[in-house]
Order: sequence, then structure tokens, then C-alpha cells
Amino acid sequence: MAYDDSNIFAKILRGEIPNDMVMETEHTLAFNDIAPQRPVHVLVIPKGAYVSSDDFSARASDAEIADFFRTVGEVARQRGVAESGYRLISNAGEDGHQEVPHFHMHVIGGAPAGPMLKKQD
Amino acid sequence: MAYDDSNIFAKILRGEIPNDMVMETEHTLAFNDIAPQRPVHVLVIPKGAYVSSDDFSARASDAEIADFFRTVGEVARQRGVAESGYRLISNAGEDGHQEVPHFHMHVIGGAPAGPMLKKQD
Repeated sequence: MAYDDSNIFAKILRGEIPNDMVMETEHTLAFNDIAPQRPVHVLVIPKGAYVSSDDFSARASDAEIADFFRTVGEVARQRGVAESGYRLISNAGEDGHQEVPHFHMHVIGGAPAGPMLKKQD
Repeated sequence: MAYDDSNIFAKILRGEIPNDMVMETEHTLAFNDIAPQRPVHVLVIPKGAYVSSDDFSARASDAEIADFFRTVGEVARQRGVAESGYRLISNAGEDGHQEVPHFHMHVIGGAPAGPMLKKQD
């Protein structure tokens, strides 16, 4: 699947639409989800043009991957959920209901988990 | 939180209990979940002693992180869900209902997604 640079995260990365930034590193951007499902709901995306986690893992450099994952951890610590608990979720493709075709990971936490959280682990 | 080496994944890594292995790399092990929620349900874990994704991102080397994430992608391709779609989920801490205190990521796919999957993206 080719990367479509008209997706909303590509526009955020180009500065064409605003974002509520949490942190930025050399290869990674983290910002608050516009429709948070919990008190903490941050999206972490690579700056590079990767469609999905699969695409990212196949083409990104070690430095990009390490930077991405370290940013995910830093977001959890900065937003105060590293101790209390949180979930990482990344959906890929049609069966996974990925809605924006730019790889992104959700960092979700900050409230007692409901039954939905219980189901997956 | 200190690492507790009596957890079930530590025992799997030491070979004390069996696992249904999917693949193994220098730093990473992937095996089928014993209670799969979908036709494809693989757990990916680092070989190193890391309690959570937070701990992993803070202490693992770039090489370990890249190896881990590339293994996640390779599992999705090998198991045939990279095209059709899948989810990555990692739970951390009490609020996240992390049940085994060794960092792990679920790779879940292979069936039409129900309402639970729709909710998170």
C-alpha cells in the first residue's frame, strides 16, 4: 500500500493543520488525541512516511524505531501513567480498523480500566 | 518496580516451561498465546528482563528495541495478517491490567473485527 500524503497526520507533520503537541524528537511527534477515550490519550507518530506498523518495522532505521519507542515511554512518564498503568494500541489495515494511513500508536491511561481493557490481557 | 524472575515469561525464556514458538531472534521471542482471542494471537517479548513497555523503552538498547519491533512486523507478515489488518496491544501496570510482569506485545488479527476493535481507532 503506497503512502497517501493527504492523510491528516501528514498534514499535521507539514504544519498545515494544528496539533496539541505533547513532545517532539528528531524522528517522532506526540500529540493529544482530539477525541480522548481516557484522561490521557496521546498519539505517537513517526515523522517519516510509513503507512502502518508493518511498513514502519520493515523500512525505518534502527534509530527511528528506537526514537519512536523511547518517545512512547517518555510520554507515559511525562503524563503520569507509567506508574498507574496504561495501554499501547496500534491498529493496522482494514481488519484492524486503522483510520488514518500513517502509522500511529495510542498511549491510553489515567482512569480505572473498564471491561474493554480487561478483555485483552 | 523490580523485575520478578518467577513470572511465566521468564520461565519460558529459561526453557522451564514450553512455548508454541513462532520465531526467535537475537533479542526477541514470539510465541502463540495459549488463549487466543482471534485466529492469529501472538505474544512478542524481549529476552531481556524488562517489567513493562515503559521499563523496556527506558533501559533497552537501540538494537534491542529495533529487533523487538522488527520481530513484531515479521510476525504480522509471517502469519498473513500484514495485508488484512491486525492490532498491536501492550498493557502496562495495574490500570492497564498487565497480568504478566514481563513486557509483552500482543499481535492480534485474522478475523473480522468486532465492536471492541472499532472503539479504539
